[in-house]
Amino acid sequence: MSVLTGIYRSSLALLTDLYQVTMAYAHWRAGTTRREAVFQLFFRRHPFGGGFTVACGLAPAVEFLEAFRFTTDDLDYLASLTGNDGAPLFVEPFLRELEAMRLEIDLDAVPEGTVVFPHEPLLRVRGPILQAQLVETPLLNLVNFQTLVATKTARVVLAAQGDPVIEFGLRRAQGIDGALAASRAAWIGGCAASSSLLAGRLWGMPVRGTHAHSWVMAFPSEREAFAAYAEALPNNCIFLVDTYDSLAGVDHAIEIGHELRARGHELVGIRLDSGDLAYLSAEARRRLDAAGFPKAVIVGSNDLDEHLIENLKLQGARIDVWGVGTRLVTGWEEPALGGVYKLTALRAEGGEWEYKLKLSEQAIKVTNPGIQQVRRYRLAGEAIGDLIYDELLGPAAPPTLIDPLDLTRRKRVPPEAEGEDLLTPVLRAGSRVGVLAGEAEARKRVQRELAEFHVGIKRFVNPHTYPVGLDQRLFDLRTDLALAARGFDR
Amino acid sequence: MSVLTGIYRSSLALLTDLYQVTMAYAHWRAGTTRREAVFQLFFRRHPFGGGFTVACGLAPAVEFLEAFRFTTDDLDYLASLTGNDGAPLFVEPFLRELEAMRLEIDLDAVPEGTVVFPHEPLLRVRGPILQAQLVETPLLNLVNFQTLVATKTARVVLAAQGDPVIEFGLRRAQGIDGALAASRAAWIGGCAASSSLLAGRLWGMPVRGTHAHSWVMAFPSEREAFAAYAEALPNNCIFLVDTYDSLAGVDHAIEIGHELRARGHELVGIRLDSGDLAYLSAEARRRLDAAGFPKAVIVGSNDLDEHLIENLKLQGARIDVWGVGTRLVTGWEEPALGGVYKLTALRAEGGEWEYKLKLSEQAIKVTNPGIQQVRRYRLAGEAIGDLIYDELLGPAAPPTLIDPLDLTRRKRVPPEAEGEDLLTPVLRAGSRVGVLAGEAEARKRVQRELAEFHVGIKRFVNPHTYPVGLDQRLFDLRTDLALAARGFDR
Repeated sequence: MSVLTGIYRSSLALLTDLYQVTMAYAHWRAGTTRREAVFQLFFRRHPFGGGFTVACGLAPAVEFLEAFRFTTDDLDYLASLTGNDGAPLFVEPFLRELEAMRLEIDLDAVPEGTVVFPHEPLLRVRGPILQAQLVETPLLNLVNFQTLVATKTARVVLAAQGDPVIEFGLRRAQGIDGALAASRAAWIGGCAASSSLLAGRLWGMPVRGTHAHSWVMAFPSEREAFAAYAEALPNNCIFLVDTYDSLAGVDHAIEIGHELRARGHELVGIRLDSGDLAYLSAEARRRLDAAGFPKAVIVGSNDLDEHLIENLKLQGARIDVWGVGTRLVTGWEEPALGGVYKLTALRAEGGEWEYKLKLSEQAIKVTNPGIQQVRRYRLAGEAIGDLIYDELLGPAAPPTLIDPLDLTRRKRVPPEAEGEDLLTPVLRAGSRVGVLAGEAEARKRVQRELAEFHVGIKRFVNPHTYPVGLDQRLFDLRTDLALAARGFDR
Repeated sequence: MSVLTGIYRSSLALLTDLYQVTMAYAHWRAGTTRREAVFQLFFRRHPFGGGFTVACGLAPAVEFLEAFRFTTDDLDYLASLTGNDGAPLFVEPFLRELEAMRLEIDLDAVPEGTVVFPHEPLLRVRGPILQAQLVETPLLNLVNFQTLVATKTARVVLAAQGDPVIEFGLRRAQGIDGALAASRAAWIGGCAASSSLLAGRLWGMPVRGTHAHSWVMAFPSEREAFAAYAEALPNNCIFLVDTYDSLAGVDHAIEIGHELRARGHELVGIRLDSGDLAYLSAEARRRLDAAGFPKAVIVGSNDLDEHLIENLKLQGARIDVWGVGTRLVTGWEEPALGGVYKLTALRAEGGEWEYKLKLSEQAIKVTNPGIQQVRRYRLAGEAIGDLIYDELLGPAAPPTLIDPLDLTRRKRVPPEAEGEDLLTPVLRAGSRVGVLAGEAEARKRVQRELAEFHVGIKRFVNPHTYPVGLDQRLFDLRTDLALAARGFDR
């Protein structure tokens, strides 16, 4: 089940920008709807100043594409739109064409959970330009956000050094789907559980929780509140100890822990949600151990992120489980991934491919043309570099990575390295080919892949830049196109 | 129509944290489910370092409450949850009680579009503690995010000084509902239109758009691309001019503008999406005017927010319409409002109210007890201060605002000031009373209310702090409770 099939009822064909439909209409009027186009979805910079990104959002994107239909309601709405003179924007035969339309696009994509780098296509869409263009906005919406959160989660999980991280973000997430999609990406990115029941039901995540301050406030004393909770849920007691005084709360939890044990149950742990987590967790650990509860876990929360967790670890905090909410599900310091979807090749029916690039005064914004594939090279199990090459041209031999921003910065791939292409076929003429990884499999991939990369790309400050380069043939093609567009010969 | 009824099919009763259900269960086991509780939803600090906040998200929250039911599927899921010993968390009779449950809560709320301040309750829920507690998480999710975006939008619209602002955020928003809910809040907050068709259909927003770079790249030249677009959509031409060279693009737009005019149509405008918008817009304006297109608008976009718009205005940029996307729909520099939902009063059936507060080592985190109402005082049409008082105690006379963080900081309300209570009844015993404002009405309220406040609260740097205080009786009650909880007499 997924956000799309499980939650959404209405057609989502209108989940796009107006201009996608006006461009579709203009193609229809120009007779160019059947021109075959290639668009690629990529980003230009890792989020959070990091050294890696985790691709996520593919399965919801594919479900979106498979369910894509304009309903009568959708078409009525489009028919109601007018231009600046009050006349309709679209004529009736065009709307009938939309009604009859079924997506016939080919989709190639990197599997969810793959570690990816700037300028590498995460998704490649090939098909009639009208169709390939129309799906730009929803693909970006679905992939940008989940990739952002999967990446954030992977960072937080790295900082936790093997301790479980629980996603607590529902109440501060950006809307209902902002929460559900974030939970999904957090699960794939490496969270061990969520506080959200619906995330548990939809994505198969374990769900975890403690109780609120209001539970404690609803009783004459904290001790009575803990006792009442233990009475009801003897096998699920993690007491939130900071409603009045955290260390007094720890002592109350210990008292109830003894009562639980006398009844044949075991205190699961305590939760600290404010104050000096480094000091309080160490003192709570000391008291729990001294009282005979060495296995009771200490859950820490309170606006945590990878930086605070790293810092608390450095200070020797004795936190066993990290509850991370707002800063994980929103991406906090960078709440959007700047993924884009760019035209890279085009041909008339039966014609030759014309490769496309967009110029910019900023070198980083000049796009790479072609029908791209990414080949990852590994040596003794370690990823050593990614080669972006054109599928029709094939890579030059021997494979050499050329930095598109500095043509003298190159890396030759050793002959003994093994290459693997990252983009795999997902849709052909609109129909599914192969099987998409589920959330659990994508989650395993993240950890497996991260282990293949040098530790330098995983640090938070000044991470190492993993080598990604253009193949010689693609680089030459890009140079020729850019020079020609700027009116120069090579 | 709304996000909830229009988009969501499945029950959303599980859209909550596990701990809400474990607390409900513990109340059920303790026999305290029918204790009457009051919870209040408020925030502690304006987002974005601003001086005001715009309340938003009430109508979706009410729809959520009205639709609230546990389905068989939901209960099956809850029945599958286990504790640390593998035994089920919940017993069957409790799940049957959830199945039979219909919300009987009273809800009072400030209307959407109201300008609000820290510590003022936006929503006040009164009812059986089990029910009032259970809805905490979804209420926070719905209200936190839409309030954040409505506030951000109001700021951007203030910066634009009357120029239309168009919301362009769908592709970078946090998931599908992150986009749709943001569009709704942007419409209420003051945006003139959205790029999103589904937002147009759901919220009645006007939709606007231009075309993408890929449109231009799909033709041999920019001029041909513009001509093809004008051929199809002669009444909707806003040409994106920066695919290759912005000023050359302006000249091409002018050429096509002449052709359009010859055919009886008028060029709507151009769009600048990169580069030095101050310089380029001034030069584009000069060229358009000189060519006889003084009415053609210039749309500016590219990671804009209130600060950049204010700055571009200061530089004399000649932009008529502002396209604002990522930084509006995500809140960017502060992507979550820290709204909380706190227990403030409780009584046993037929008993006396017991007022509740939560202590904290941080004074700002000590909550205000009571069944609160907010009275806004106006003098000659200007809002001069808000009084938070307890509805049962009533306000002391003459009304005096006492700063809870500094008891010597007070403001006496002049006798000629007119007071208006902000919280109005929405639900009684779970049923709707009165009519909720629609999006269009809430949108008008924002502008009407903002006009009532001193300009100082609306500036972006060091805004004036609008006076909000506790009533004397509520202040005394709070002081007594806090002293007692800390073991002191008054």
